[in-house]
Amino acid sequence: MISKSMTQLVQGNSVIRALFEEGKEMAREVGAENVYDFSLGNPSVPAPEAVRTSMKRILDGDNSLYVHGYMSNAGYEEVREAVAASLNKRFGTCFDWTGILMTVGAAGGLNVVLRTILDPGDEVICFAPFFGEYTNYVHNYQGNLVVIPPNPPTFQPNVEMLAERITERTKALILNNPNNPTGVVYSAETLDKLQAILEEAEKRIGHSIYVISDEPYRELVYDGVKVPFMTKHIRNCIIGYSFSKSLSLPGERIGYLAVPKEVDDYQGLVEGLTIANRVLGFVNAPSLQQLMIKECLNEQTDVAAYDKNRKFLYKSLSDMGFDCVKPEGAFYLFVKSPVADEKVFVTEAKKHHLLLVPASTFGCPGYVRIAYCVSYEMIERSLPAFRALAGTYFD
Amino acid sequence: MISKSMTQLVQGNSVIRALFEEGKEMAREVGAENVYDFSLGNPSVPAPEAVRTSMKRILDGDNSLYVHGYMSNAGYEEVREAVAASLNKRFGTCFDWTGILMTVGAAGGLNVVLRTILDPGDEVICFAPFFGEYTNYVHNYQGNLVVIPPNPPTFQPNVEMLAERITERTKALILNNPNNPTGVVYSAETLDKLQAILEEAEKRIGHSIYVISDEPYRELVYDGVKVPFMTKHIRNCIIGYSFSKSLSLPGERIGYLAVPKEVDDYQGLVEGLTIANRVLGFVNAPSLQQLMIKECLNEQTDVAAYDKNRKFLYKSLSDMGFDCVKPEGAFYLFVKSPVADEKVFVTEAKKHHLLLVPASTFGCPGYVRIAYCVSYEMIERSLPAFRALAGTYFD
Repeated sequence: MISKSMTQLVQGNSVIRALFEEGKEMAREVGAENVYDFSLGNPSVPAPEAVRTSMKRILDGDNSLYVHGYMSNAGYEEVREAVAASLNKRFGTCFDWTGILMTVGAAGGLNVVLRTILDPGDEVICFAPFFGEYTNYVHNYQGNLVVIPPNPPTFQPNVEMLAERITERTKALILNNPNNPTGVVYSAETLDKLQAILEEAEKRIGHSIYVISDEPYRELVYDGVKVPFMTKHIRNCIIGYSFSKSLSLPGERIGYLAVPKEVDDYQGLVEGLTIANRVLGFVNAPSLQQLMIKECLNEQTDVAAYDKNRKFLYKSLSDMGFDCVKPEGAFYLFVKSPVADEKVFVTEAKKHHLLLVPASTFGCPGYVRIAYCVSYEMIERSLPAFRALAGTYFD
Repeated sequence: MISKSMTQLVQGNSVIRALFEEGKEMAREVGAENVYDFSLGNPSVPAPEAVRTSMKRILDGDNSLYVHGYMSNAGYEEVREAVAASLNKRFGTCFDWTGILMTVGAAGGLNVVLRTILDPGDEVICFAPFFGEYTNYVHNYQGNLVVIPPNPPTFQPNVEMLAERITERTKALILNNPNNPTGVVYSAETLDKLQAILEEAEKRIGHSIYVISDEPYRELVYDGVKVPFMTKHIRNCIIGYSFSKSLSLPGERIGYLAVPKEVDDYQGLVEGLTIANRVLGFVNAPSLQQLMIKECLNEQTDVAAYDKNRKFLYKSLSDMGFDCVKPEGAFYLFVKSPVADEKVFVTEAKKHHLLLVPASTFGCPGYVRIAYCVSYEMIERSLPAFRALAGTYFD
C-alpha cells in the first residue's frame, strides 16, 4: 500500500546505505575490528572543540525561547548575515544576507531548490559520476535527471556533450565540486566553458538554467589545490553548502543555500526557496546548530588527517596494481574495477570484509568508491585484505 | 523562472508567516510592547531545565563522532527503543523500536509519510478546520487534498460525510488531535465511528487507507481531559509526533513517526518511510536532539501557564461579547468573527495592533485563531485593544 514510486525505491534501496547496514551486521558476526568499512562518507575526524564550547555557551545563555524557538523560515537574520559576511570576506563575493537560507544540510538545500524550480516533467542535467541521490531528489518533484556520461581518465565534466542535452524542459544543472565519488576538482577553465555553453543555451531555449552547486567538500582539498568559487564563473548559480564534512557534523543537518543577487529572478527565487523550506517540512534549519555556526564559521576540520589517509591508501593500492584516480579533494578514492562488472569485484571484496561501493550507483559502472574518512589504523589493518583481493586479479 | 506551482505559492504565501513578518515590522514602528502578536504557535514557556543539562552532558561525553555523526536514517536505535518503551508504558501499546522513525519535527514526519504513500493524483482527506500546511504537504507529491466541511459549534470531525468522500484514489486521512486551530479534542466515540467507516470503505475500494495522526499537542490538554490514544481506536494509524510544543523546541526540529505492527504492510511502510526520510533530504533527525530526547522523554512543559492564559483570555473575550470555542487542548482560541468576512475583522484588529489569523487559512471562513502561547502579561496589556475592537461591533 505504499506508492508505486516508493515501491521501486524500496526494491532498489541505496546501495551505500545497504552496505552500511550490512557492515553493522558483519561486525556483529566477525567483530568490528575485522570489518573494513569504506562505504560511507561519515567523517572520522571529530568536530573542532569550538563546536562543543560554542553550543554549551549558547545553551547557558539563558534565552531558551530564542535558542530553541521558531525564527523566519530562512533562518536567524544574525546567522545569515554572518554567513554572507564570511563568504564575502573569504571569496571576495557580494552576497546579501537575504540571499542566505539556512538549511537542513546540503541534501535538504538541494531538495528545497528543486521543489522551488521544478514542474512535473522538467529536466535536470548532471555529469557522471554523480552522487546517486540526485536521481531521487529530482524524482521527488516528478522531474527527470539527464545524465551526461563520465569522462575518464580526468573525470572533468564532459562539457562538450552539454549543449545537445539541453532542451526546453531543462531547468537546472547540478555540479558537485570537489566531486563525490572521484575526488576530482573541476577546473576554472572547465567552468568558464560551461558558462559559455549555458549562456548560449539560455538564449536558444528562452529561459534561465540554474546551476545548483553542491559543495559539501569545498574545504576538503589537498596539495594546495584551489577550488574555483562557483559564482565567480557561473552566473545563474545557487550554492548548496553543508557543514557535515567541514565541521564533522553530518548527523546535525546544518547547511545553507547562497544565492547571489545577480541570478535571474532573485526576489522570486529567494522567496520560493523560503517557502519550499517550510512546506517540505524542514520549516527551518535546527536552531541551536544555526547559532553555533555563527560562532564557528572560521573553524576548520583536520584536513591533514584525511590527507595522510589519502596518500597512504592511494600509494598502497596503486602499488598493489589497482588503477586509482588521484583525489584532489573530498575523502574518496575512485578505483577502476579489475573486472568489467564492478559488482562482482565488490562481492569479492566482501569476502575479505572490505566494504566498497560499486560506482554504478554513481552512474559510472566499472569503478568502485573507497571512502577514506576512516581511521589511519583501520587502513593499515585493511591492507592484507586488499593485498589478498589484489592477488585474485593481478600477478 | 521558479516553477508554476511555486509561483502560486509565492502569491498566496502563508498568511500566518506573513503576519509573523508583519508583526516584526509593526514592532519596529510602534515598539514591540505595543504590538499584540497572537499569530504564531511559538511556545512562550521555556524548555524544561533538563533539556539544557542533558544536552550539555551529552556534549561533554567526548564522543563527538557518535553525537554528531550519521546513524541509520531512521535514527539511533537506542533512541527509538526509548521512545517505543515510553509510549508502551504510558499508553499500554506494543510499539516495536523498528516502528519508530525519528523525524525533523511533525512537519517533516508528515512529508515523509506522504512521500511514501502518494502517487500523483492520489487523494488525502482531512476535516476542516485544519492546519493549512496540509494542503502544501499533499501538493508536494502531486496529491489532492479533499476537505470535509467544519462542524460547528462542537467542531468534532464531521464523520457522517466521510464515507461519500472516499474514492479509489483515497490513500490517507489526516487527523489533528487536539486540533489546531479550534483547541477541540476529538472524542473516543468519534474515533470509533471513524474506524467503522474506514473499515467499510477499505473493503469497498479494495485497499488500505492510512490515518496520519498529527499530534504535536497531545500533552497540552486542560481540565483533566484525556486525549484518546489514536492507535487504540484506529487500526491503520501512523502517529506523527513533535517535541516542538511539549518541550518548547520548535526551532530544533525534532519529532518521530510511530507505526504499530498491526498496520497493513508494516515492513514495506517502515522501509519506505526510512527511505523517504533520506531522499527528501532530511537524511535523519538532528543527532544531538535525538540523544537529548532519549533522556527527556518524561519531561513536561508548564501546561499550567498555558491554562492560565486560556482561562483568562476565554473569559475576557467572552465577557466582551465575542463568541469563543472553549479550548480543551493546544494553545489556540477559536473565535467567531462578528462580521461574515473574517478578513475584514482581522484588518480591523490590526488597527489596534492585534495580530489574529483569519481561519480561511484553516478551511473555516468566518472565524479567527488567537494563539495564546504568549506571556500572561501581554494578554493583560492587550485587553484594552480587544475592548476597543469589541466596541466596533457590540453595544
